[in-house]
Amino acid sequence: MIMSTQDDKKFLQRAVDLASENVRAGKGGPFGAIIVKNGKIIAEACNSVTFDNDPTAHAEVNAIRAATKGLQNFQLDDCTIYSSCEPCPMCLGAIYWARPARLVFAASKGDAAEIGFDDAFIYHEIEVGLENRSIPTLHMPSYEFLEPFRLWKSSGEKIDY
Amino acid sequence: MIMSTQDDKKFLQRAVDLASENVRAGKGGPFGAIIVKNGKIIAEACNSVTFDNDPTAHAEVNAIRAATKGLQNFQLDDCTIYSSCEPCPMCLGAIYWARPARLVFAASKGDAAEIGFDDAFIYHEIEVGLENRSIPTLHMPSYEFLEPFRLWKSSGEKIDY
Repeated sequence: MIMSTQDDKKFLQRAVDLASENVRAGKGGPFGAIIVKNGKIIAEACNSVTFDNDPTAHAEVNAIRAATKGLQNFQLDDCTIYSSCEPCPMCLGAIYWARPARLVFAASKGDAAEIGFDDAFIYHEIEVGLENRSIPTLHMPSYEFLEPFRLWKSSGEKIDY
Repeated sequence: MIMSTQDDKKFLQRAVDLASENVRAGKGGPFGAIIVKNGKIIAEACNSVTFDNDPTAHAEVNAIRAATKGLQNFQLDDCTIYSSCEPCPMCLGAIYWARPARLVFAASKGDAAEIGFDDAFIYHEIEVGLENRSIPTLHMPSYEFLEPFRLWKSSGEKIDY
């Protein structure tokens, strides 16, 4: 389904309005996201990190979880994700795993940094080598530890995703 | 708390065993993760993407959600995350938001790619510009869309995270 610029603006405004409502309600950060399929909103969500004590509960992740639960599918085929802000690396990763058709966002990560959300720091950490990460990271490779992968490779009942 | 190499191996083996059990049970991908605080396991989880129809339900995300729920805190202070495999960008982002003390993992992303989990593709997508992403991405900046950020900046009741 082709979205017009007018449609995009309308749906993006809804994601932004959710973000504003979230701040007014004191429920979490100033972020909202919605997911649209065939011109209809199938999920709406806000950031609920502090409310739910869940550091993964960003607006985009919450919206993806709600939408895929509703669709009973782990993929967002033909969907557009509208986010009030450019996704952080966690949310961008989640979006790639969910495989929607499009992503539309309003504020940039630069705008977010100006009010104290330093997603740029995580973008940077992802790009540097393990030995230079701010969270000490240890790789312990061994043949034994690859047992799950050998099982997966030889399993006849696996569902690819 | 300082972990010995022996402790690290023991806890990492538990994450790997969970991954193997997950494949045998047919519940999802060959990935497991545990979270340890003060020498005790406070959360254990496996990949449940296909079982839960949730593309965000990777082992590390599931473990972080379980641990922070149990701690009633959105941060994993003084915790170590043990993962059977090097985290994908979504999980690495989640780990950075959860702020544990350490990360220890077994298989590498190269090992995962060999059995068909191409996290490297998402790592690459994160690094390229918006205009070159495989999921078409549209940035629609406007003054009106920054309203949630203005509200956040002037809010006296916000909880930083």
